[in-house]
Amino acid sequence: MKIAIYGYGNLGRGVEYAVRQNPDAELFGVFTRRPPETVIPVFAETRVFPAADILNYKDSIDVLIICGGSATDLPKMTPALASDFNVIDSFDTHADIPKHFAAVDEAAEKGGRIGIISVGWDPGMFSLNRLYANAILPQGRDYTFWGRGVSQGHSDAIRRIDGVLDARQYTIPVQSALESVRAGENPELSTREKHTRLCYVVAAEGADKARIEREIVTMPKYFSDYDTTVNFITQEELDRDHKGIPHGGFVIRTGSTGENGENRHVIEYSLKLDSNPEFTASVLVAYARAAYRMSMRGESGCRTVFDIPPVDLLIKPREQAIAEML
Amino acid sequence: MKIAIYGYGNLGRGVEYAVRQNPDAELFGVFTRRPPETVIPVFAETRVFPAADILNYKDSIDVLIICGGSATDLPKMTPALASDFNVIDSFDTHADIPKHFAAVDEAAEKGGRIGIISVGWDPGMFSLNRLYANAILPQGRDYTFWGRGVSQGHSDAIRRIDGVLDARQYTIPVQSALESVRAGENPELSTREKHTRLCYVVAAEGADKARIEREIVTMPKYFSDYDTTVNFITQEELDRDHKGIPHGGFVIRTGSTGENGENRHVIEYSLKLDSNPEFTASVLVAYARAAYRMSMRGESGCRTVFDIPPVDLLIKPREQAIAEML
Repeated sequence: MKIAIYGYGNLGRGVEYAVRQNPDAELFGVFTRRPPETVIPVFAETRVFPAADILNYKDSIDVLIICGGSATDLPKMTPALASDFNVIDSFDTHADIPKHFAAVDEAAEKGGRIGIISVGWDPGMFSLNRLYANAILPQGRDYTFWGRGVSQGHSDAIRRIDGVLDARQYTIPVQSALESVRAGENPELSTREKHTRLCYVVAAEGADKARIEREIVTMPKYFSDYDTTVNFITQEELDRDHKGIPHGGFVIRTGSTGENGENRHVIEYSLKLDSNPEFTASVLVAYARAAYRMSMRGESGCRTVFDIPPVDLLIKPREQAIAEML
Repeated sequence: MKIAIYGYGNLGRGVEYAVRQNPDAELFGVFTRRPPETVIPVFAETRVFPAADILNYKDSIDVLIICGGSATDLPKMTPALASDFNVIDSFDTHADIPKHFAAVDEAAEKGGRIGIISVGWDPGMFSLNRLYANAILPQGRDYTFWGRGVSQGHSDAIRRIDGVLDARQYTIPVQSALESVRAGENPELSTREKHTRLCYVVAAEGADKARIEREIVTMPKYFSDYDTTVNFITQEELDRDHKGIPHGGFVIRTGSTGENGENRHVIEYSLKLDSNPEFTASVLVAYARAAYRMSMRGESGCRTVFDIPPVDLLIKPREQAIAEML
């Protein structure tokens, strides 16, 4: 299957890597809204095309992986492209998913194409694990913890503060809360009890660090509901120790069975990722395979991870998967 | 959907409980090869029928959950019933799954029915997690640890030793091995390095305990490849402290991405179950829903957990699942 990347940032680069790990996939190229000559792909042989030309390659691309932001890019891009291409995105604004689904579904049905939205790990693998665990244990309770990992949105929020040159924010699950959930204690956890926030900040010379710290820890929505620690470091330290984009988290469902619910069960799924965008890209490529197969079967419309038979993600034939992995 | 239970032991009782947790499911009754009047169901209103009469109820049962043993029951029962009923089993002899699949597929296709085999947690949820993790991280390594939990087969093997009145065997993962896997060290682990075996044994009065212990720890296949601890206890202690059937385990895949595989990722799925049969039964009932829906859509043939779109397991409609869980 020929895969193309639409949008070339960290996620697009991740897809460029991931395609190489999948022998049934081939990278057609990268499409960018920037002048193509200014985009340097990871691998020299990767071709870079102007995004505006994409319709010229309608018959050469099996699946288009759209690597844009959820705030403004994807709500426009994915529906706009879903009539002409099988598309996949990682749209992650949970509250707006039904609206995005409807827009992509209409476009994909119109063009007889497949669109898979909200693919990644949350939404994505975390959602899947919530669904499976809920189906198995109807009487129970869900918990999701994120981290330890870098939140881009929170890092950006700090960078917008006057006197801040650079910043990196880590979301960290509270260990005692995790342990209480795992022990089946079904705790009621406030926002503050679930996660802490750890910030590394590079301040401009002469900036008022006390004010910057106060502005961070009192920032509504982002920090004020959390126990937040602010560390001031140099740009060299930030570049040396905090360049990675790790993330991860835990999806846990605790439930009970038996005559009076006397038997308790804990289902836990966790991820520990050195690179959030590269892992997300790897999930996208697996679902690109599913999109390709569904399209070859003549299916059309919008899909989510909830709809896809697991075996469609796997490079191995079904019979081999049953023999080797079941 | 009307569910019937075929075979009434621990697993069948688990299904009887589980059906009550699913408001869209109704228990038609229990079918048993024993004289029905000798079978006492958990709930007084549960009807008990002779297994021999099952064909009389062909049109009254939507899905038949076959709760037999994998050694001799299921290889005969599931294919025999799959032409006349939508069936589900928990066949768990991994090496014989392709053969069982073929037999059930033929019968189910002949009758235009759905058969779902090898449903539970291993095979079942563990297999699913192996598949998803392999699809996402093609370059990586799989590990499965079982326990802490009771192994029925190993407990039975001890009970067959001369002078043993009763026994309970726990399989326990080696914590340091688990930690090494989670740390991404990709260890090569021998059988002995992955699990230990802990046995509680009730010896007959005057039995030679040293001989019993020697026979256990040197037993080929079952114990000789493991570090095994044998504790002699009284029947009262066994009944008081070891009556439960807990189990669980860990499926971990570690893999790498990036230009030179420099970014490492750990995907972990784990279960901690107070009751192995009740949890397995809960998985069976969720897949019974999928069998019912597939059958209503006119599909037929054998399926595994690899084939089923996740949303078919869920009582909620798809739109609600997308809005609430994705």
